[in-house]
Amino acid sequence: MAAHQRGAFSLGLDIGGTKTHGLVLDPADRVLAEVVHPTRRGPDGIRATALEVAGCLADGLGIQPAAFSSVGIGIPGIVDHTNGLVETAVNLDIERTDLAELLADGFTVPVRVENDVKATALGAVVILGTRPRDLCHVNLGTGMSTAAVAGGRLIRGDRNGAGELGHFAIDPAGERCGCGQRGCLETFVGGRHLTARLAGLGLDLAGLGTAVGPVATAERDRLVGALATGLTLVVISYDSAAVTLGGGVLRTADWLLPAVRQTLTERAASSSFLAGLRVADRLIVLPGDVPVAAIGAAVVGRKKGLHARHDLVRSQS
Amino acid sequence: MAAHQRGAFSLGLDIGGTKTHGLVLDPADRVLAEVVHPTRRGPDGIRATALEVAGCLADGLGIQPAAFSSVGIGIPGIVDHTNGLVETAVNLDIERTDLAELLADGFTVPVRVENDVKATALGAVVILGTRPRDLCHVNLGTGMSTAAVAGGRLIRGDRNGAGELGHFAIDPAGERCGCGQRGCLETFVGGRHLTARLAGLGLDLAGLGTAVGPVATAERDRLVGALATGLTLVVISYDSAAVTLGGGVLRTADWLLPAVRQTLTERAASSSFLAGLRVADRLIVLPGDVPVAAIGAAVVGRKKGLHARHDLVRSQS
Repeated sequence: MAAHQRGAFSLGLDIGGTKTHGLVLDPADRVLAEVVHPTRRGPDGIRATALEVAGCLADGLGIQPAAFSSVGIGIPGIVDHTNGLVETAVNLDIERTDLAELLADGFTVPVRVENDVKATALGAVVILGTRPRDLCHVNLGTGMSTAAVAGGRLIRGDRNGAGELGHFAIDPAGERCGCGQRGCLETFVGGRHLTARLAGLGLDLAGLGTAVGPVATAERDRLVGALATGLTLVVISYDSAAVTLGGGVLRTADWLLPAVRQTLTERAASSSFLAGLRVADRLIVLPGDVPVAAIGAAVVGRKKGLHARHDLVRSQS
Repeated sequence: MAAHQRGAFSLGLDIGGTKTHGLVLDPADRVLAEVVHPTRRGPDGIRATALEVAGCLADGLGIQPAAFSSVGIGIPGIVDHTNGLVETAVNLDIERTDLAELLADGFTVPVRVENDVKATALGAVVILGTRPRDLCHVNLGTGMSTAAVAGGRLIRGDRNGAGELGHFAIDPAGERCGCGQRGCLETFVGGRHLTARLAGLGLDLAGLGTAVGPVATAERDRLVGALATGLTLVVISYDSAAVTLGGGVLRTADWLLPAVRQTLTERAASSSFLAGLRVADRLIVLPGDVPVAAIGAAVVGRKKGLHARHDLVRSQS
């Protein structure tokens, strides 16, 4: 059996708004090669970027693109993984594109596509090893997105809509969200809302941790409290063994997670239920120097997804 | 191959606080026999009740209890399905009992045990047929419990804690919950809190739908709004194709669900996101005359759980 038939070269592409991260995994999930290119926008730009990154990786490994045993892509927006359809990836100038079809002639194997946060959740399972058969990834970028893996499988729901917890409204009198509701979790913890709100108050996210005065204190409490609530909601919904965190908000505000842990601990002191949830103990910030999203994209490409060692078989449904 | 080796007689027992519902399913999930007995409490009482119901069903079918091809039990409380351990089933006078072990000598096959709401979710998949590969069951009894099935498998989480949405706090200034928090969803929509609160105001749940005056109106809005919020949260978390509803609160308040549908429709009018969720369209009240929980218990007993036709295989994780 030839090497590529045994899954020797799993290509993963994480296509972001500014750059595309590509890598190749071997069957043991080791990264064989890795490159980052700027993303060109629109369907044609994305096609060119993807093929360019794939070609570059193949060159580096001394193989042809036909040798890739699987091809997986993670991309922002609403993704129907069953047919590769990508919708409303606004930052990429995509309204509705059949990405799998668009790239089909570049490879000899099917191209599989998934939402980037869902792909990252799969990547997080690989990074963290066999323990978290149940894991939820929370991305705090411009908005708040979550993706849960249960028993080694992504929870997608009926229409790939599971995990939109950022649009759960926690305050009916809160800020108007782009979704039409008021007080969505995302309006408290998402980067776009946060940045605009703090700028209007003469504050910024990085400095909020040490800023003094009643306004800064109130804003800090507002953000920390809402994020503690959102992470509690994740654990209540999925009981994930690990809750991984990523995204620009946490990178900018290095003071935020310790404050959230403290709030979670304080809340647990007055509730046996919350104490039993141990939310603070489940939080894991994904390392910034590991290409988790691209690793997850490579897993998306494999027909069977996660290896069996990540996918503990349950005795019954 | 003998009939029982092919799964001819799947025994399911739904052990409730006052009665135990037992039935036998054939391989096509048809109910072959069904009985209801009063539940005796405590470990010894439950053992006696279970064996008595099983014996009665076997007699009716003209078989020996050894002919049961599988045995499954649904029971309130925290259940570790991997070892059959039941904890804090308060209404049954059980603190911590290995129910699978307790009943082992009564049968020739392993006894499998699951939380009754989770069992009911599996039963709902059987009742509704092949469509809902993703389904969430919401029980409004003394409290509020939910159990989700994704891709034909129960979402259990790391410690069988997934779906405790009744203890998500939506109002930090709300009523104190038994869990130590304030304003849990359960304090708005659970039967115990509702009944006590309404009695204190000279109201009752059945009459609240037509009661007049500002107090009644405020209480109605409070209940309807919170239940609409809870059901929206279920759909945001799991994107379940169907959200089934059961429990005493809905049976008592026949006016409640139409009012919740109306509120959901009104909220959707001001939010494209909520409109897209179509929460009202997903709601299905389980028929009161079908033993859904006991059918689910029989499914729990089977090693493979739901039949393949209920468990659509996904192309990747």
